Amino acid sequence: MTPAAAPTPAYRRLSVEERRSQLLTAALGLFAHRAPEEVSLDDVAEAAGVSRPLVYRYFPGGKQQLYEAALRSAADELRHCFDEPREGPLLPRLSRALDRYLTFVDEHDAGFSALLQGGSVVETSRTTAIVDGVRRAAAEHILSHLGVTDPGPRLRMTIRMWITAVEASSLIWLDEDKEPPAEELRDWLVEQFVAVLTVTARRDPQTDALVLALAEDV
Amino acid sequence: MTPAAAPTPAYRRLSVEERRSQLLTAALGLFAHRAPEEVSLDDVAEAAGVSRPLVYRYFPGGKQQLYEAALRSAADELRHCFDEPREGPLLPRLSRALDRYLTFVDEHDAGFSALLQGGSVVETSRTTAIVDGVRRAAAEHILSHLGVTDPGPRLRMTIRMWITAVEASSLIWLDEDKEPPAEELRDWLVEQFVAVLTVTARRDPQTDALVLALAEDV
Repeated sequence: MTPAAAPTPAYRRLSVEERRSQLLTAALGLFAHRAPEEVSLDDVAEAAGVSRPLVYRYFPGGKQQLYEAALRSAADELRHCFDEPREGPLLPRLSRALDRYLTFVDEHDAGFSALLQGGSVVETSRTTAIVDGVRRAAAEHILSHLGVTDPGPRLRMTIRMWITAVEASSLIWLDEDKEPPAEELRDWLVEQFVAVLTVTARRDPQTDALVLALAEDV
Repeated sequence: MTPAAAPTPAYRRLSVEERRSQLLTAALGLFAHRAPEEVSLDDVAEAAGVSRPLVYRYFPGGKQQLYEAALRSAADELRHCFDEPREGPLLPRLSRALDRYLTFVDEHDAGFSALLQGGSVVETSRTTAIVDGVRRAAAEHILSHLGVTDPGPRLRMTIRMWITAVEASSLIWLDEDKEPPAEELRDWLVEQFVAVLTVTARRDPQTDALVLALAEDV
């Protein structure tokens, strides 16, 4: 993509990818304080300090395209939270991933709710698929760290329920002015993870074996 | 099914409220097998065996109004699931409410996912508010059965997380061809309720008192 008419030198310094990323960062900053449907391309131009035509050139699909691109970029960042080396005891790994996740939630604040919660006028089956993709990725990461390649329905449902509960807890956490403190919420979520697995273990041998392994893994 | 135009006497027999309810039942039946955005007022007319103009008279706002009315009607039905006499031990009360909830989910099937899940093109902040209202009602019912009038943030968050997990489990349950059987899912959810409260009890005296009371309440 080439610059608009009479570009300023600053415009030339950024590559297409850098420019795009600059605009998305500006958009995410705006989403943190306003509902997606209230953020216009003009606002993004102003926040990024660039011309309106430039923003329109990057997002010819308008507000909806900007929103989806921002959501995709947030989803990518969220996936990075799950990157955790496969070494050392399992629960501290989960704890570190939750730390990164809660830092992300903390930083994006209202924008996190707006991006991940339903009810936005710009929500479509496409945006839901992006969010569901992150949930699925989280479940796959957990199962892979647990060394499970063929999860049965009870284990799968338990993990997915816990992930939904984590998501709900972070939205509530934002609602409740970030109380309790992030470290307490993190420890509490890890304890809940063990508790729900333990409940499932009573009716599922696969989960039972995992719970035994977790208890020995210190 | 009766023909359109030239209304049959059957048309006159129903009151406005009865007619409205007949049309909503027809609409909910269609939502059980199709995404809301794929259900037209004409389809509802056909399913209810009434004329198209009649349906348009009841829902002049079109598809969106029909969808919201159907969602409201489903939300009312869901609230009824929570009606449970305040007598006898607490966990069997929860179990009976879950039974009614899972029967509702079972009967409405795909329509339940379509109505309650995000990602529909007809989803707006208004429809999200309806669904959130049901979640809030569920939380209030639980707290009132537990005899809690002033829940602290940790107890409140625990209850809301469990409700979200229940919702997620029912969507997954539909995805997984209703496996495990409803009775097992119900018992499992009750056990998870106790388990997550027990985890919270370690860091919250209010919840700790509740868990002790639950253990003595047989």
